[in-house]
Amino acid sequence: MSNILPSTTRFDAGLTANPANFVSLSPLTFIERSAAVFPDRIAVVHGETRRSWAKTFTRCRQLASALRKRGVQKGDTVAVIAANTPEMFEMHFGVPAAGAVLNSINTRLDADAIGFILMHGEARVVVTDREFSSVVKQAVQALDQRPLVVDIDDPGYAGGELIGELDYEALIAEGDADFPWDNPPDEWDAICLNYTSGTTGNPKGVVYHHRGAYLNAVSNALAWNMPQHPVYLWTLPMFHCNGWCFPWTVALLSGTNICLRQVRVEPIFAAIKQEKVDHFCGAPIVLNTLNNAPDKLKQGIKHKVKVMTAGAAPPSAVIEEMERLGIEVTHVYGLTEVYGPTVVCAWKDDWNDLPAAEKAVLKARQGVRYHMLEGLMVADPDTLVPVPRDAKTLGEVMLRGNNVMKGYLKNPQATAQSFAGGWFHTGDLAVWHADGYVEIKDRSKDIIISGGENISSLEVEETLYRHPAIMEAAVVARPDTQWGETPCAFVALKEGIEATAEEIVAFCRARMAHFKAPKTVVFGPLPKTSTGKIKKFVLRAQAKAL
Amino acid sequence: MSNILPSTTRFDAGLTANPANFVSLSPLTFIERSAAVFPDRIAVVHGETRRSWAKTFTRCRQLASALRKRGVQKGDTVAVIAANTPEMFEMHFGVPAAGAVLNSINTRLDADAIGFILMHGEARVVVTDREFSSVVKQAVQALDQRPLVVDIDDPGYAGGELIGELDYEALIAEGDADFPWDNPPDEWDAICLNYTSGTTGNPKGVVYHHRGAYLNAVSNALAWNMPQHPVYLWTLPMFHCNGWCFPWTVALLSGTNICLRQVRVEPIFAAIKQEKVDHFCGAPIVLNTLNNAPDKLKQGIKHKVKVMTAGAAPPSAVIEEMERLGIEVTHVYGLTEVYGPTVVCAWKDDWNDLPAAEKAVLKARQGVRYHMLEGLMVADPDTLVPVPRDAKTLGEVMLRGNNVMKGYLKNPQATAQSFAGGWFHTGDLAVWHADGYVEIKDRSKDIIISGGENISSLEVEETLYRHPAIMEAAVVARPDTQWGETPCAFVALKEGIEATAEEIVAFCRARMAHFKAPKTVVFGPLPKTSTGKIKKFVLRAQAKAL
Repeated sequence: MSNILPSTTRFDAGLTANPANFVSLSPLTFIERSAAVFPDRIAVVHGETRRSWAKTFTRCRQLASALRKRGVQKGDTVAVIAANTPEMFEMHFGVPAAGAVLNSINTRLDADAIGFILMHGEARVVVTDREFSSVVKQAVQALDQRPLVVDIDDPGYAGGELIGELDYEALIAEGDADFPWDNPPDEWDAICLNYTSGTTGNPKGVVYHHRGAYLNAVSNALAWNMPQHPVYLWTLPMFHCNGWCFPWTVALLSGTNICLRQVRVEPIFAAIKQEKVDHFCGAPIVLNTLNNAPDKLKQGIKHKVKVMTAGAAPPSAVIEEMERLGIEVTHVYGLTEVYGPTVVCAWKDDWNDLPAAEKAVLKARQGVRYHMLEGLMVADPDTLVPVPRDAKTLGEVMLRGNNVMKGYLKNPQATAQSFAGGWFHTGDLAVWHADGYVEIKDRSKDIIISGGENISSLEVEETLYRHPAIMEAAVVARPDTQWGETPCAFVALKEGIEATAEEIVAFCRARMAHFKAPKTVVFGPLPKTSTGKIKKFVLRAQAKAL
Repeated sequence: MSNILPSTTRFDAGLTANPANFVSLSPLTFIERSAAVFPDRIAVVHGETRRSWAKTFTRCRQLASALRKRGVQKGDTVAVIAANTPEMFEMHFGVPAAGAVLNSINTRLDADAIGFILMHGEARVVVTDREFSSVVKQAVQALDQRPLVVDIDDPGYAGGELIGELDYEALIAEGDADFPWDNPPDEWDAICLNYTSGTTGNPKGVVYHHRGAYLNAVSNALAWNMPQHPVYLWTLPMFHCNGWCFPWTVALLSGTNICLRQVRVEPIFAAIKQEKVDHFCGAPIVLNTLNNAPDKLKQGIKHKVKVMTAGAAPPSAVIEEMERLGIEVTHVYGLTEVYGPTVVCAWKDDWNDLPAAEKAVLKARQGVRYHMLEGLMVADPDTLVPVPRDAKTLGEVMLRGNNVMKGYLKNPQATAQSFAGGWFHTGDLAVWHADGYVEIKDRSKDIIISGGENISSLEVEETLYRHPAIMEAAVVARPDTQWGETPCAFVALKEGIEATAEEIVAFCRARMAHFKAPKTVVFGPLPKTSTGKIKKFVLRAQAKAL
């Protein structure tokens, strides 16, 4: 590490690091502590299964031991394609404890994409679940060398088939419960490999290290003001940036993981009421889904519940409705490259007295740096000169800190580009408010330029979401001979409610500068990526063809 | 750092640290964030003074700048002998921001001891306060080379004199408010120098680094389950292990520091009620003092207040009484060598249903490792073999982690001894409970061996503290021709309450094995060290001479 240089003052003479005063930072220490201090507390709940921290830790040790016995070495990749089950949680500890690198693969990918990832990441072991057996089988068959395939045989899923050499429980049984549990020799060692969704070209493999995972897991707890022993519901896929580092955060705080195979409103509200879930995460669409649940499900929450949302700025109407249910929204921002969230819309007491709508507008801003992200700026991507804090000038969001990825696997060019000038370039365009809060206006490629004016597609979407009939909305540029581009809205309506294009355009014109209102409205379900993001490149192609 | 080695897997190839993804860990980032995110929140309250985080941060920058202009370089020592005032808080940031090392000196030391520390630490600057002007003047006069002396001219103290070249405000005024604020190039760089109380021989200079200060400050927040924006009262001297790292913890959490020049019951209860103090720290004697305050002061606390105590196991009677006042006690353990507290008696929900007395007994145990201390064991100090977890076998408490000191300044022999075998040797003797909680029985030299049986002086003291007439008690070995040694009790009685030696002995015999009860009881005030610890070596000499 370039910054750790031999030092020269008398405060360094003879005062070198030794095993008593230097230990590499790793989230592996979190589960070891929870198992030692709170052995009997429930760590994981899944259907009928309730396992303590002691038991879960033992299973993680056995997993690490079994992987070693099966020949897994330091720096080998262990891939997993699974739902949010206990096995997936355990792998976040057992795999790195074996010195290996955990590669969680998006379950919504097709066989080709999975095959590419397994090949590029050089997975030696693939752990999979009945639900994904058909694509995984196909992906594995196409590989030159077959990895060890291990099945998660979850009673919570009936279909699919077992396609591996053995099942996860059999693998665990091969391991020793007294396998030595130690931090990696170097905190800069890789812990995880996460592929970007890759809207253009092949996905890139983002490498995380133990130091970054440790710090971002702690930073989650600080940014969200989490107490000891949270009850955390797994609405967010653990394959998504390692569940934003929350497997490690929950272990740090000796909390309880409530597993969930599918994001459906019934089990979510049931878990909140019965298990007393107090924390969960999800994209704005998850919040939207909960908001649109039947009233009888939504009623009866009597304890404090907090949701963290990211992935896109939540429309303020969605935030408002969520808080009416008694669920407090914390808005964060991040990317795969920065271990999930690293920017938070830190709340101010002064804002409590504002009207709900104003609060929601403030809350939709991305905000300020996490406690453990050291640098955040909005700047010109070429000169790296920060933009003025005038809430108007667009610049690119730049990040710097220990929770920025190690780099892209086997991709020196993309790595160098993303770190140009010593800052991580997010590709997101934002303005900077006078109070230091960042507000994203668009991805670089999502800005619409109409008659020389920049139009933020997000701003138009924000307005569309306030329309009572609209369930989901996305706005892209449509080529126009007169204006260059004009905003084109794609909308999905709520079930049983109708609206016309004219009415929607009028609704927008009444609420924003006329040139920003959509000129075109297209109805129908919106195409999504595997991570649930709307595929704007598909809509852009559609708009072009109109 | 020996553990950061060149790595060899494909997850390292080309993926080196760079300014985008590696930043040295330093608590300097905490104040920078609080000033940026919560500029208007009150950071420091002292008498009529109320300063925001923005203002406090600016003053810290000016201090760093002014020190540089006065010739202070990286690795220079800046000493301070001050009460818990805003200046003392600011120095915890401004001094390391200049690249210098903060040496906080115990205000209860005499001129010779201060002189030794200034000489040994090679202080280039000494910041002092009117209250300590007479000893500091004397100490400085004895030095070969006079450092720059700066006066804190606090309106909160009337006596003493100004003895320096300039006062603190004039120094601040010399500095630039836009001084560049940056983390140190190496997180292993020294941040503070703290001298042990040195009951035998000269005190030793304990060196802290930025990485350890950062991690222990965060670990305080986790172990104490602290929320954002705590209101923290400075009952604990900031010169004591840098206030157990709490100046940095309060900055991390964007809280408010309530300053306090003296530990007196009136201002403490006033601050709790008026400023809504919710967190404070202190040795058990502070708790005892509060317990013995007049009832009308103690009444009327309506919000949740938490006190963290360490320095000696708090007698369970003291804990019980504190909790009756509505002040929740968290018991921690640490030493100067480990940045203050690093072991905590982590509370378990199951224990809530126990009777108050049993709860207090559990709470008097030292407990388990802090979240960010990686190793804790009770072991044979020679072989390093852990003792059985039988709650009986004595061993030495051993610690390992990033919050263990860098070492002793210019003292390679003591450094090597304290780190023998790759563990920090605390010198404290303890038993290990089956649940992994450590309970200290004594300092190595405080064990009494009577008729071949070990008697814990702490256990006898614990019993004495339950006697209604006893304010303070200390037990040491008295040489005895028949038994080898016998327990000898020194006690100070509460004002206006009487008790005889016979009665006290009978009280103890009714509550513990007879051989453990004191054979001798001596009345009178107890001699204390500068840090408020009872000088057992003085009592031992007295017992020998009886």
